[in-house]
Amino acid sequence: MDCMRTVEYDYSRQQVRLIDQRLLPGEFQVVAYEDYHQLVDAIRGMVVRGAPAIGATAAFGLALAAQQSQAMDAAGLLADLRQAGDTLQAARPTAVNLSWAIRRVLDVVQRYMAEAGEPSLAGLQALVLQEAQRIADEDVILNQRMARHGTALIQDGDTIIHHCNTGALATVDWGTALGVIRMAHEQGKRLHVLVDETRPRLQGARLTAWELEQYNIPYEIISDNAAGFFLRSGQVQKVFVGADRVAANGDVANKIGTYMLALAASDNGIPFYSVVPTSTIDLDLASGEQIPIEERDPQEVLAIEVEGARVAPLAAKARNPAFDVTPHRLITAIITENGLVYPPFERNLPVTVRHGIK
Amino acid sequence: MDCMRTVEYDYSRQQVRLIDQRLLPGEFQVVAYEDYHQLVDAIRGMVVRGAPAIGATAAFGLALAAQQSQAMDAAGLLADLRQAGDTLQAARPTAVNLSWAIRRVLDVVQRYMAEAGEPSLAGLQALVLQEAQRIADEDVILNQRMARHGTALIQDGDTIIHHCNTGALATVDWGTALGVIRMAHEQGKRLHVLVDETRPRLQGARLTAWELEQYNIPYEIISDNAAGFFLRSGQVQKVFVGADRVAANGDVANKIGTYMLALAASDNGIPFYSVVPTSTIDLDLASGEQIPIEERDPQEVLAIEVEGARVAPLAAKARNPAFDVTPHRLITAIITENGLVYPPFERNLPVTVRHGIK
Repeated sequence: MDCMRTVEYDYSRQQVRLIDQRLLPGEFQVVAYEDYHQLVDAIRGMVVRGAPAIGATAAFGLALAAQQSQAMDAAGLLADLRQAGDTLQAARPTAVNLSWAIRRVLDVVQRYMAEAGEPSLAGLQALVLQEAQRIADEDVILNQRMARHGTALIQDGDTIIHHCNTGALATVDWGTALGVIRMAHEQGKRLHVLVDETRPRLQGARLTAWELEQYNIPYEIISDNAAGFFLRSGQVQKVFVGADRVAANGDVANKIGTYMLALAASDNGIPFYSVVPTSTIDLDLASGEQIPIEERDPQEVLAIEVEGARVAPLAAKARNPAFDVTPHRLITAIITENGLVYPPFERNLPVTVRHGIK
Repeated sequence: MDCMRTVEYDYSRQQVRLIDQRLLPGEFQVVAYEDYHQLVDAIRGMVVRGAPAIGATAAFGLALAAQQSQAMDAAGLLADLRQAGDTLQAARPTAVNLSWAIRRVLDVVQRYMAEAGEPSLAGLQALVLQEAQRIADEDVILNQRMARHGTALIQDGDTIIHHCNTGALATVDWGTALGVIRMAHEQGKRLHVLVDETRPRLQGARLTAWELEQYNIPYEIISDNAAGFFLRSGQVQKVFVGADRVAANGDVANKIGTYMLALAASDNGIPFYSVVPTSTIDLDLASGEQIPIEERDPQEVLAIEVEGARVAPLAAKARNPAFDVTPHRLITAIITENGLVYPPFERNLPVTVRHGIK
């Protein structure tokens, strides 16, 4: 990926740098941020998207907030960090990684303050940045661990349906569901990917297609509507998706359309896998019913053009839920960095998250 | 609809006139055809689409072919009509109305020739046009009969999901599934329609939204991916779709995406109705497995633009099946001009088609 991560911190300039995903595949451009408020806008506006990527971005956002803080003491800095954390967390409600990453950084700061008495402000700033960098670095490592677990499920010659974008661009680097596909390809397995275009934001047609070209993996784009046709046709062996939040019972909140895709896979006996780091699993939620679903600007649905002409009538209104919940009964297995988790998820997910399985 | 039908014959100019559906909702334009070969291109290029509308268009196409024929006798004219019928029928393979309308016109000609000995060429030309006009006129009447049967299923306050376009623009006039919704609205029932945008050709966002505005029926456009979310949310009471071909066992071939929509309706116990004239029911096919599925130009998937920029990578390929088959087990009832047909369809459909039920 042009030798840069989707999300990275530039130590010489004290900036957070993001690949601007709104411009791909037409243009590869990197945007730099020095103010965490701008980073909130970047998350909301989907310059950066994907649950793991926005988690790491938020952690680096706290590092910016620590630098920006005018506080005179550690308690003041912590208060500023908490406020920045609340603002960052509110940018997008569905993915749990955002609040997970923020809580992790704040916990480290609080623990350090409790142990070190009255630490220096510079020391605390460095601590925040160090923890953010750890989250980012771990994400890449965890993705590759997930990929190694997941590739065991892929056979030479498989045709795989993939929804949304879960690749390097959805993470700090490497990818979750697409990371599994990528590793299977690197192992020499011949694959074909049917790429759901993923309306309304078209992350499949824009980002996943672009990544698959970088990796030289054969693919074809399909309209989301066509997934059912191909699943019924006998031409597809597996479905791989990511997740934005997984409840304790295995219900998966993911990009809108995932639920119907899972229904069609299940109706045809095709395995359906969700690939997620354990940071995406929210054991505090008993079921998917409790996952908040973001509803985004209707313009994302209405702005579509064909041959330069806007499609919908000018007065048209739209509804635009960004995610849906796939009930656990439709999910064959959840792939984490700690291994494959099979039903009953209610029993097996907490074990995986808390203790790890190999 | 601007006082004109979607498909009509201009007797003074001897032309077939079609509303150009590729330009709506931006532009309302009517195209006139004097050569049936051009009409074949119009059907293939989707100037006109919708199973009932292309049936009537093909019948009028035979009227043009009869006028264009250089034949010196009735047998020669019949041969020319048969050839024109084959060409028209090949324009689109999935909808059965095309071959149904052509066979109906040719049968009338053959029967007349058998009875009238050696009829005049002018008489045969008039006969072809008369039968095409009958097919067109009947379509409007049948649609309104379907609508009257279908409205019994709609309650005041219902929210309805609708896929593709099945309105006046998909028929000669009035509509099938959208015709039911339209009549319920005219009866004073308060309705809300969630309009599937229907990728890749966006007939929902373009045509159904445009029609609903003409009728003053409240609606919102949703991405096809979002239908499952709304069906699970408890906000939707019914799903109405049309059909391009119905097999003897009740399997329904319809616009791509219908199958996943039906799965999501079924998974949430929401009634799913297909509204079709009996001319769309093909008793010669035992099941949907045997329905030929048209695969259209990948450019229909790839040409999508947002803010003037093409979305997919330039080298991207796509697959583009235009229809899918929804198994009869997912269909609550089929609404025909002869009444509502419930399972077991295998027994009840042939009775409906052959004898009619009230």
